[in-house]
Amino acid sequence: MRKEPGEDASPEVRAVYDDIMVTRQVDRVNNFWKAMAHHPPTLRQVWEEVKTVMAPGALDPLVKEMIYVAVSATNGCEYCTYSHTAAARAKGMTEEMLGEVLAVAALANKTNRLANGYRMPVDDAFLNT
Amino acid sequence: MRKEPGEDASPEVRAVYDDIMVTRQVDRVNNFWKAMAHHPPTLRQVWEEVKTVMAPGALDPLVKEMIYVAVSATNGCEYCTYSHTAAARAKGMTEEMLGEVLAVAALANKTNRLANGYRMPVDDAFLNT
Amino acid sequence: MRKEPGEDASPEVRAVYDDIMVTRQVDRVNNFWKAMAHHPPTLRQVWEEVKTVMAPGALDPLVKEMIYVAVSATNGCEYCTYSHTAAARAKGMTEEMLGEVLAVAALANKTNRLANGYRMPVDDAFLNT
Amino acid sequence: MRKEPGEDASPEVRAVYDDIMVTRQVDRVNNFWKAMAHHPPTLRQVWEEVKTVMAPGALDPLVKEMIYVAVSATNGCEYCTYSHTAAARAKGMTEEMLGEVLAVAALANKTNRLANGYRMPVDDAFLNT
Amino acid sequence: MRKEPGEDASPEVRAVYDDIMVTRQVDRVNNFWKAMAHHPPTLRQVWEEVKTVMAPGALDPLVKEMIYVAVSATNGCEYCTYSHTAAARAKGMTEEMLGEVLAVAALANKTNRLANGYRMPVDDAFLNT
Amino acid sequence: MRKEPGEDASPEVRAVYDDIMVTRQVDRVNNFWKAMAHHPPTLRQVWEEVKTVMAPGALDPLVKEMIYVAVSATNGCEYCTYSHTAAARAKGMTEEMLGEVLAVAALANKTNRLANGYRMPVDDAFLNT
Repeated sequence: MRKEPGEDASPEVRAVYDDIMVTRQVDRVNNFWKAMAHHPPTLRQVWEEVKTVMAPGALDPLVKEMIYVAVSATNGCEYCTYSHTAAARAKGMTEEMLGEVLAVAALANKTNRLANGYRMPVDDAFLNT
Repeated sequence: MRKEPGEDASPEVRAVYDDIMVTRQVDRVNNFWKAMAHHPPTLRQVWEEVKTVMAPGALDPLVKEMIYVAVSATNGCEYCTYSHTAAARAKGMTEEMLGEVLAVAALANKTNRLANGYRMPVDDAFLNT
Repeated sequence: MRKEPGEDASPEVRAVYDDIMVTRQVDRVNNFWKAMAHHPPTLRQVWEEVKTVMAPGALDPLVKEMIYVAVSATNGCEYCTYSHTAAARAKGMTEEMLGEVLAVAALANKTNRLANGYRMPVDDAFLNT
Repeated sequence: MRKEPGEDASPEVRAVYDDIMVTRQVDRVNNFWKAMAHHPPTLRQVWEEVKTVMAPGALDPLVKEMIYVAVSATNGCEYCTYSHTAAARAKGMTEEMLGEVLAVAALANKTNRLANGYRMPVDDAFLNT
Repeated sequence: MRKEPGEDASPEVRAVYDDIMVTRQVDRVNNFWKAMAHHPPTLRQVWEEVKTVMAPGALDPLVKEMIYVAVSATNGCEYCTYSHTAAARAKGMTEEMLGEVLAVAALANKTNRLANGYRMPVDDAFLNT
Repeated sequence: MRKEPGEDASPEVRAVYDDIMVTRQVDRVNNFWKAMAHHPPTLRQVWEEVKTVMAPGALDPLVKEMIYVAVSATNGCEYCTYSHTAAARAKGMTEEMLGEVLAVAALANKTNRLANGYRMPVDDAFLNT
């Protein structure tokens, strides 16, 4: 584990932390952002991207968080699975909804490998959509 | 590529094909199912699971299809990405919604690896949810 | 696609090709080895490792080939899935055995993600084995 | 970590637990099943699939468990690697057999990436099997 | 495959295409960017990130491209492996250097799975760096 | 966790340990090698491969270690990420260089999935390199 930037964070890092806390209306930043602070350009870039991509758009933020959970569980990223499961719950995901997110992700992981193993060509109907 | 079971499909395989066509109101089964027919117990089991897991529940079927697309793109499964993108479009996914599904999946794949690389501990706040 | 080393292969590459053909009692090497020939140290090292690891040992060669198929389908490597499915068939794998290999691989891919998503601690009983 | 369903498990969950304990002749269920109990349809579906897929068939149960270990190590699923390594040992896997399972899985992971990186076409001979 | 935005690309898309062509001193954009144009915010965001991250910094651009090739081959992304191998060659990567990039990536993929399979604890010495 | 081979290591294992310690000029071997010792042929084979592949060649050892870190973070291998980050630091990787390694790896993981999701054909220009 890396040392956390703390009181002595640079003004550049401080500015991103402040924007995170104001945007999310919280009074601390979580460990992910403290780790990113080891490389300030990454900290700033990732925060801007998260702020933009996870905002309400054609999809609502809860759907986006559930997609994030499904991808993180697929990749086996423990930190991201924990943090985005918590974020999705905070946005209204129930136990039953989580159950369905993971059941779909599990099924997709299964059929992805069956498709890889049996190697069928893509149907013409799908190629033209 | 494997040979397709066709006219001479066994009654067991035929029964699953018929259920797929009736349930989806289509007059053919796509190549995935024809490949699964090489192992009838898998054909039957996967179809039952797809039918149950992808049905309306706490999440609506379009959200489920979009999660399927995100996982399939994460795993790099070409067939499944094509087939579930087509299925999601058929259920109402617009070009803009697809854009957001893939932007979230791409961001998750990125932060999953930043989390792996910088190795931060899971925040206590997340462990208790 | 890379150009194939052919008639003009170096003596170093030729020697590996010859050993592959003699060991496997075939009169050509497949495209994987021709591609490896772009970096002769890799060609030689991989062939030595394949020859040793895939030889009869505590596990028989067919079981080893089926494990290779399961891993290759999991990773979505098209070339390796094709070549090791062919190799396993040549060693006696039936259609039904392939069906079971892929059903187990598919199930493992599924439960791996359920375990990642629900994040349960490893049971003490497993830690002590 | 999620809270475990315990004494107060629903009759639906209890029934699956009982079937697991009777089938496996054990007096407790491991943490994986307790976590699945957060979504009873998944608990029931996964248990039915495990019971069917991992039963003796064209492949014997030990071979199936070793394939499970190879896939779980490939995916980096810690829980599944521990639990299926324990299960394989219980079915007779020796230290040497585990060594060979992992040596094959490691080699497959290596050649999968060499194939991806050098991008050779699939040999005609493999396409026709 | 998706239709390409062409003559009729929006001014927003045109502006990114122009910046790509000016920055790289080429007279066309490759298929990746044309596909991204289906979701203009993603096109713009990804291009900005590529321009920043792949620029000379503490690492030189060739090293960055070789890391890109290693990751793309690991993930099995055919398009990215082709495009970044070409980009690395354009920056000076020789056949022998590519051979070493892929030999290291292959070895890492192998030992990653051996580490997952044998499950050793991280040495204290590594935790404190 | 497996028991470590210690004082009572076999002569075969001892010989590899000694070669590791002499080659690296250290007085202990790390946990990875102790775990490999459960299967001596793997211990010996992996050590020979590491010694050869990671040696100075067309690429310098620091570049090789940084590629190793990028691949290990992509695969989510905690042990390998820790050990190769430490090894890269020992060879001169600064905090800023690590920041760039992970920024490139993160970007590659992101665009790999965008390429998978939007499914564009490989440009002719790339196929001919």
